[in-house]
Amino acid sequence: MSRIAICAPATSITRDHARALEELVAAEFPQHSVWFHEQCFAEEGHFAGPDILRLEALVECANNPDFDIVWFAKGGYGSNRIAQAALARFNDAAREKTYAGFSDCGYLLGALYRAGIGQAVHASMPVSARSESGREAVRRVLRWFSGDNSGLEPSLDGQTPAVAFNLITLSMLTGTPMMPDLTGHVVMVEEVSEHLYAVDRLMFQVTNALPRVAGLRLGAISNVPENDRDFGQTEEQIAKFWCDRAGIPYLGRARVGHTLDNHIVPFGLASPAAGQ
Amino acid sequence: MSRIAICAPATSITRDHARALEELVAAEFPQHSVWFHEQCFAEEGHFAGPDILRLEALVECANNPDFDIVWFAKGGYGSNRIAQAALARFNDAAREKTYAGFSDCGYLLGALYRAGIGQAVHASMPVSARSESGREAVRRVLRWFSGDNSGLEPSLDGQTPAVAFNLITLSMLTGTPMMPDLTGHVVMVEEVSEHLYAVDRLMFQVTNALPRVAGLRLGAISNVPENDRDFGQTEEQIAKFWCDRAGIPYLGRARVGHTLDNHIVPFGLASPAAGQ
Repeated sequence: MSRIAICAPATSITRDHARALEELVAAEFPQHSVWFHEQCFAEEGHFAGPDILRLEALVECANNPDFDIVWFAKGGYGSNRIAQAALARFNDAAREKTYAGFSDCGYLLGALYRAGIGQAVHASMPVSARSESGREAVRRVLRWFSGDNSGLEPSLDGQTPAVAFNLITLSMLTGTPMMPDLTGHVVMVEEVSEHLYAVDRLMFQVTNALPRVAGLRLGAISNVPENDRDFGQTEEQIAKFWCDRAGIPYLGRARVGHTLDNHIVPFGLASPAAGQ
Repeated sequence: MSRIAICAPATSITRDHARALEELVAAEFPQHSVWFHEQCFAEEGHFAGPDILRLEALVECANNPDFDIVWFAKGGYGSNRIAQAALARFNDAAREKTYAGFSDCGYLLGALYRAGIGQAVHASMPVSARSESGREAVRRVLRWFSGDNSGLEPSLDGQTPAVAFNLITLSMLTGTPMMPDLTGHVVMVEEVSEHLYAVDRLMFQVTNALPRVAGLRLGAISNVPENDRDFGQTEEQIAKFWCDRAGIPYLGRARVGHTLDNHIVPFGLASPAAGQ
């Protein structure tokens, strides 16, 4: 039984998205309860409401002892704008929670992991519950919330700490006060809707800036736009090239990314979700 | 009289581009000579030839005492892949030269500035000589090569060291061994063909990661693609927002960018071009 609070630190979802998740949980996961913060449906410009509204909603969900899990509704862009200020206001109840999401919400996962607050988890998000294909990725998360580890990224060995990030998100964290120390970690990276030259550029930055990590795994590089010319290297050649140059062991692929195959990566060493 | 060598550390130009510059120089700047390295016209995948070819061409131009100036033909993407290895092979003649370019070639400018090699200069590039509108930006550079300072970015005061970077390029330099120490500098940033949410994300990264700079100036943010929603803030609001949060003085606009108004910013304190 997990009591799950949902807020949207980046961009908004619709009430249809919320209903789809509620129906899925009621039908298949009666052991869980989900509660959507009203802020999930707010809109201002690009974001799910102004910074202060998104921040307050996140703090409210995190600090409420009636919830075990805070699940971020959707990525997009924007959680970086509120992460530091929100974490500064987290209380003891917030420290016990599991925080799940990915993509742009990686800023929050990184900041939480750095601060040692709760359990940050790379996982698919409520926004995916509306499509038949996305639903299976959401079920994987709900099963993990129930103590079922079948949705964990298969390479996790319980011995080496791991993280998973969207490549741009990890790159943008570099040099900021939210960047966790990834020394000794397996770092998994995935990207969506970026040209391969941009992936190459990001791999340059990330491999140059990372400390001595245990290795890098490449997640899905999906929905790559057509360019006016072929890049001339595959995504895996790009990853190997930069890992070789930086002396980082390239460990192969990871089953994370903006796809239905997106698996779960608890930051650090895997531990059960709060509430189990 | 400046003897100018041109190579392409990122992407290639055509012989028509080269001819256009040669004709402009012959007609209006007979005091200069321009020589195009054959590598400018090479192509492999995304790049103006493989890394080793681009690297060798750059080293050849830099190390040849018969040239005063190395002018980068075009940006695009790719100079980051060869910058460190090239600079490691630069000789004493290379240390006397002026290096001019911008956009993706900012990786080289940054690395040169960090290493204290020659005079790095943000300036328009030979690729622009083919269009009537671009030609004026190229003339501005050729005049500066002649000792005419009318094309310098107007805010340069000769007292405060300055640099100018493409925003992504500066962001990607963060945490790498090519990043110069920008303490006390006025930092000018410009961007092209990026969504405003991406500009916001980059400003977040750059303002968080910069040391104590003298201030930030915003160049042109040009050719912003349509998004499915309005971002809700202008480019200048974005720059001010992140400067305010980081305690960086926002100093207003700068006349740099991917436009015909692109002005010249010698890195550090302005000094005449080599050969003057």
